[in-house]
Amino acid sequence: MARQIKSAEQRRGELLDSAQALFFERGYDKTTVNELIQHAGLSKGGFYHHFTSKEEVLEALVERLASASMAQLSDVMESPDLDALARLNAFLSRARKMKVEQVPQMRGLFETLFQPGNQVLYHRINTASMAVVTPLLARIIEQGRQEGRFDVPDAHLAAETILQLGAASYRTVARAMNAAGTDEADTAADELDQALRFQGVVVDRILGLADGSVDYVEDGFSRAIVGALAAPSQ
Amino acid sequence: MARQIKSAEQRRGELLDSAQALFFERGYDKTTVNELIQHAGLSKGGFYHHFTSKEEVLEALVERLASASMAQLSDVMESPDLDALARLNAFLSRARKMKVEQVPQMRGLFETLFQPGNQVLYHRINTASMAVVTPLLARIIEQGRQEGRFDVPDAHLAAETILQLGAASYRTVARAMNAAGTDEADTAADELDQALRFQGVVVDRILGLADGSVDYVEDGFSRAIVGALAAPSQ
Repeated sequence: MARQIKSAEQRRGELLDSAQALFFERGYDKTTVNELIQHAGLSKGGFYHHFTSKEEVLEALVERLASASMAQLSDVMESPDLDALARLNAFLSRARKMKVEQVPQMRGLFETLFQPGNQVLYHRINTASMAVVTPLLARIIEQGRQEGRFDVPDAHLAAETILQLGAASYRTVARAMNAAGTDEADTAADELDQALRFQGVVVDRILGLADGSVDYVEDGFSRAIVGALAAPSQ
Repeated sequence: MARQIKSAEQRRGELLDSAQALFFERGYDKTTVNELIQHAGLSKGGFYHHFTSKEEVLEALVERLASASMAQLSDVMESPDLDALARLNAFLSRARKMKVEQVPQMRGLFETLFQPGNQVLYHRINTASMAVVTPLLARIIEQGRQEGRFDVPDAHLAAETILQLGAASYRTVARAMNAAGTDEADTAADELDQALRFQGVVVDRILGLADGSVDYVEDGFSRAIVGALAAPSQ
């Protein structure tokens, strides 16, 4: 029987596959490092060769998920006939669509990140995901500057600032998580909607555009998100 | 000998006094819970009656420091003859002055918060401090809305967003911390300056003001901060 030799990269990938399966199915909190190790068919030493903690696994997983999402946006990024605003709006629209689609399976992760006391883990994860998305957003903003349509002094700082805005709605999203599936769901969705519409205006203004230029949120998005959060994860 | 009976509130205050003394002198990382307990002359049970962890002590201390700073701004908040923009600029100017003055003694705290791996603690502390400052900033912005000078849909969301901008410069400040006192200090100060000037423009635009209306940063501020970071804490 030929023993399969796997590269370190392969083993790391398999570990992340296991983490994704377990975190999504059972939830992040309910998965132990030992269960991860067992599921991936690794030794303890093998695990600690790649990661120092469960948090670090989650960070790497979020990076992989964000990179996969961004790869799905390559047509929006590459399409030669979009001006910067059209590209930005297509980018945001597709990103929202992916969010609504992904939330039900990722509920086990979200539950953890928006639980009281886990804001710190959320920020770590948010930083990992921002690192992947910032360069793409900065490219779109730089295009807008080149076209003379976006009036903003620095594309990279603008991209960072815009992505950081999401973190400002942490409490609102946490409340929506708790309200999902209850009588409070509509109120929570309206509050989320208000926060996102405000963020949309901030994005318009950061880019030097008239209010309402950037399609940051659309009717029904917040209710769709809160509805998806209420759906059982399996 | 009359035994002095102290209220729970008094003991909590003394614990925070001890934490402030030790965190500022030795640094947060180098102070243990046992040292805190000893310094405050408390029992272990007494400590855990008030706090569950050293992080929680830091959170409460930061809240107290932020409240004390805000109390020092009461003249700016109450002065009847300031329009909203003048009040906002006076508020920001005094806040910067306090920062430059406080940084040298708070170096032991900052070192911890801006160390690699401590971003999570930073965010917790930032949230505690934002909770104190947001209502005051929201009041100023609401005044500007009432006066018809600030064009922004929601004063509270605007205040939250503006305070959240600080968190976007976490990496820049962390780099400045490491560069303080080295050959890289000037470059780090310039980079911080650029980030703060960008944030200033974002604040102008969030409030619907012309670029440059809000005095968010002044010449020499970033160099003063980086200089103060380089000074030994005692």
